[in-house]
Amino acid sequence: MSEQRPGASNGEAALAIICGGGSLPFALADAAVRRGRRVVLFALRGWADPERVVAYPHHWTWMGQFGRFMRIAAAEGCRDVALIGSVARPSLWQIRPDFRVLRLMPQVLRLFRGGDDHLQSGIGRMFEQHGFRLVGPKEIAPELVMPHGPIGARLPRDRDRADIARGLALLNATSPFDIGQAVVVADNHVLAVEGPEGTDRMLARVAELRHNGRIRTAVGTGVLVKAAKLGQDQRIDLPAIGPPTIDEARAAGLAGVAVVAGSTIVAEPERIAAAADQAKIFVIGVDAGGTGR
Amino acid sequence: MSEQRPGASNGEAALAIICGGGSLPFALADAAVRRGRRVVLFALRGWADPERVVAYPHHWTWMGQFGRFMRIAAAEGCRDVALIGSVARPSLWQIRPDFRVLRLMPQVLRLFRGGDDHLQSGIGRMFEQHGFRLVGPKEIAPELVMPHGPIGARLPRDRDRADIARGLALLNATSPFDIGQAVVVADNHVLAVEGPEGTDRMLARVAELRHNGRIRTAVGTGVLVKAAKLGQDQRIDLPAIGPPTIDEARAAGLAGVAVVAGSTIVAEPERIAAAADQAKIFVIGVDAGGTGR
Repeated sequence: MSEQRPGASNGEAALAIICGGGSLPFALADAAVRRGRRVVLFALRGWADPERVVAYPHHWTWMGQFGRFMRIAAAEGCRDVALIGSVARPSLWQIRPDFRVLRLMPQVLRLFRGGDDHLQSGIGRMFEQHGFRLVGPKEIAPELVMPHGPIGARLPRDRDRADIARGLALLNATSPFDIGQAVVVADNHVLAVEGPEGTDRMLARVAELRHNGRIRTAVGTGVLVKAAKLGQDQRIDLPAIGPPTIDEARAAGLAGVAVVAGSTIVAEPERIAAAADQAKIFVIGVDAGGTGR
Repeated sequence: MSEQRPGASNGEAALAIICGGGSLPFALADAAVRRGRRVVLFALRGWADPERVVAYPHHWTWMGQFGRFMRIAAAEGCRDVALIGSVARPSLWQIRPDFRVLRLMPQVLRLFRGGDDHLQSGIGRMFEQHGFRLVGPKEIAPELVMPHGPIGARLPRDRDRADIARGLALLNATSPFDIGQAVVVADNHVLAVEGPEGTDRMLARVAELRHNGRIRTAVGTGVLVKAAKLGQDQRIDLPAIGPPTIDEARAAGLAGVAVVAGSTIVAEPERIAAAADQAKIFVIGVDAGGTGR
């Protein structure tokens, strides 16, 4: 490739990883490095974990510094870009737009009128319009993508499978509204729909509702169901689970966790399996219709 | 009517009001009494407000004491029954079933497999199968039902109307799943979907999300949208707003509150109007398609 620089290895240009919060950016970076690929982290101020960022070649950046990103990425020989990790929807002033973004402002303002999905796919398009190739975890590291079937020893019972099917149907219905990618269903009863608070806070809410008696299904009932939105750009912001998800699901008194195989990121599957077995909950990859092998 | 007893006045049999929590049961009782009707409150233990119940003819009861209810209601000359006030979905053992309910157990167990709406309409059917007539607030006290148009001085702006329309469309989509009857939409972005926690806790969540920076739309943006579920029995559990709703909406930084005219209960509309004007937010009754006169 013409963009290749001496720093790139393995015949591929370096991978730019735009890092939000959580451990996923580093799991992705490690997976790319394992394949002999050079990575450059663009750590988003306020989101990326400073203690972990230092272990990689990196540049700190504000969200709106697109011109700066383009200059550094070119100098680093990056053509492929991955966007990964948690980022709350920013306010317009918080993105600290540089000159390049200011020129794109009409486009940016339109993006901000939509939901998260709209915003993210628009940002993806911006990168592509400027000659970058947006790559997703599936392409970089398929081992980070949830497989079909269980992780860990437990399997859902029939009643759990009914809750999974209901959860997936609800996520399908809310998908056009560009909201959360997760719900909790217990005994055919919807306990929570995820909003901008994220899965962790939603599960904490379920735990609290159980604690204060607002929901009264038995402990060990109910499933956290996560799915990508319909038509979502699978290169950006796939739903993800990690070991903390298992702890939170256990604390919420759930029977298990079901995610859509092939479109959910799984950080540290071995640790997830161990945590699930210890918590006596199931973790299963299902197809979008709700069945798991 | 053959069921009429000396206690009944105004040519109508006494009205049995099965009271959950909050002030709505008393607003309904007062409205019936203003019409010269005798009321008998069946105060649900754990839910009805003991301090207010004592002002009315009343009997304390557990949720599952259907046989006892029937005996007392017959002795009191009640044929019409209203179910009103907040009640969390009970666990099966918490309803303290009496003998009559135990005989109906197969039916009750089926009810418990569905969502709240399913449970409520099933309970309504149980009353009707035993010779009672289920009556709703619209029939007893139309002045408690939200009118079309604004309450208070403020009106929604165009952007608020767009948020209202999006909120109503989302509530339509989630309606078959028998979940919450309220959402918060700000600047076309869904901030929260109500679950079993109730509107007050959902609004507190929005306030918290704003406070900790997880949502960043400007204060004074966003609408609480409430609607009855599609096909909901309008005699039971209509969505309701009261003066506290206004305080909570203001604390969540919203521009206003929109509810569906004709199928929302409004306790104390004058106090709501005063609170809304003071909080500088609008309160409007719209049709299910989102327009308000």
